[in-house]
Amino acid sequence: MSQVSEVEPGVETAQHWLDQLHWRYATKAYDTAKKITNEQWKTILESVRLAPSSYGLQPYKVVIVEDPELRKELRAAAWNQAQVTDANHFVVFAAKQTITEKDVDDFIKLTAETRGMPADALKQYRDIIVSDLVQGKRAQMIPEWTARQCYIALGFLLAAAAVQKVDASPMEGFDPFEFTKILELDKIGYKAVVIAAVGHRRADDWLAPLKKVRWPHSDLFIRK
Amino acid sequence: MSQVSEVEPGVETAQHWLDQLHWRYATKAYDTAKKITNEQWKTILESVRLAPSSYGLQPYKVVIVEDPELRKELRAAAWNQAQVTDANHFVVFAAKQTITEKDVDDFIKLTAETRGMPADALKQYRDIIVSDLVQGKRAQMIPEWTARQCYIALGFLLAAAAVQKVDASPMEGFDPFEFTKILELDKIGYKAVVIAAVGHRRADDWLAPLKKVRWPHSDLFIRK
Repeated sequence: MSQVSEVEPGVETAQHWLDQLHWRYATKAYDTAKKITNEQWKTILESVRLAPSSYGLQPYKVVIVEDPELRKELRAAAWNQAQVTDANHFVVFAAKQTITEKDVDDFIKLTAETRGMPADALKQYRDIIVSDLVQGKRAQMIPEWTARQCYIALGFLLAAAAVQKVDASPMEGFDPFEFTKILELDKIGYKAVVIAAVGHRRADDWLAPLKKVRWPHSDLFIRK
Repeated sequence: MSQVSEVEPGVETAQHWLDQLHWRYATKAYDTAKKITNEQWKTILESVRLAPSSYGLQPYKVVIVEDPELRKELRAAAWNQAQVTDANHFVVFAAKQTITEKDVDDFIKLTAETRGMPADALKQYRDIIVSDLVQGKRAQMIPEWTARQCYIALGFLLAAAAVQKVDASPMEGFDPFEFTKILELDKIGYKAVVIAAVGHRRADDWLAPLKKVRWPHSDLFIRK
């Protein structure tokens, strides 16, 4: 859907955006008493849903873990990191482990329905996807390919939190096999690949006042 | 650095953000005559630089390809897709293929310098990273682990473009081996993993008016 913004984003929009990217950090200590608003959470989830993925397939599930007992169990499988239980919200990105022709057909059906066209009109596109993901070279690396897509969605979650001045922590320090088992993701053909906590930082989080560490432009970028 | 925004982001900020995420799409046809401003481009690159990564290591390079002849050569290795030559800007995310103790020490040095502390004070953190990435389980999957980090930075590029009403296309349809060779990334230990075009859509891009296809909340999210 090509919505048209009324106002051209200007320097102020860009400055607010960069300010928020500076403001954010991988929060370690969450304020257990401070909740984000329902609107903020809905905006974050909608951003994850709108994140792009290869072919638009979105080959992942996003598990929102609300049950405190389950969170405790997951924390034990995440080096006992407090963010898992203390953050207002906690999500697990789970990558699909196989892509079948049926998966592609389901996606083509969704596309046809969304755009009000017959699925037949998308036959060529369908065949390209199948030949790449089911028969082609990429078929050999589906779990990695789907994991990578999760990281775009993770990036959108982090950015959506930051623009709203909500804290978030991307986390890889957990046992993916344990998480997959605990959340019964293996039973539906998915595997936990990355997790994120969302909420508000505690005022005394030791990491908050430290300067952000990033490689300078001259190290990160190569011009050709 | 924990900068404090003067104004609490409200409903309008969230609405602008979501509007822009709806507005964006993987642009196919770029207007070769329409350039984005230097400020917009700088904001996009700075967003990529500020993107988080595991341990903050940023184990990738971002190649900005400006040379038109080089762009032509890359286009031939990307199924002849026009975005490669026609977009105002074109970048290649290249993942580091090995992580050595020296890499970790370089990062610890950067951290110590940035935060004005002795590197010795970070010895414990250094050892944790080394034991995970150089000696531990993750050492077996460095190319994949570094590739995943690229996708967070890609997500930040796409979001930074969208908030500024700049078009961008994430692209996986290219030959990573050819790209790596053409850009001589193998000589410095990196490999091309994902690419992105940035600029302004052509008014007649056939994809622009089509409705965005996304799985509904009930399919994407699992509540536990």
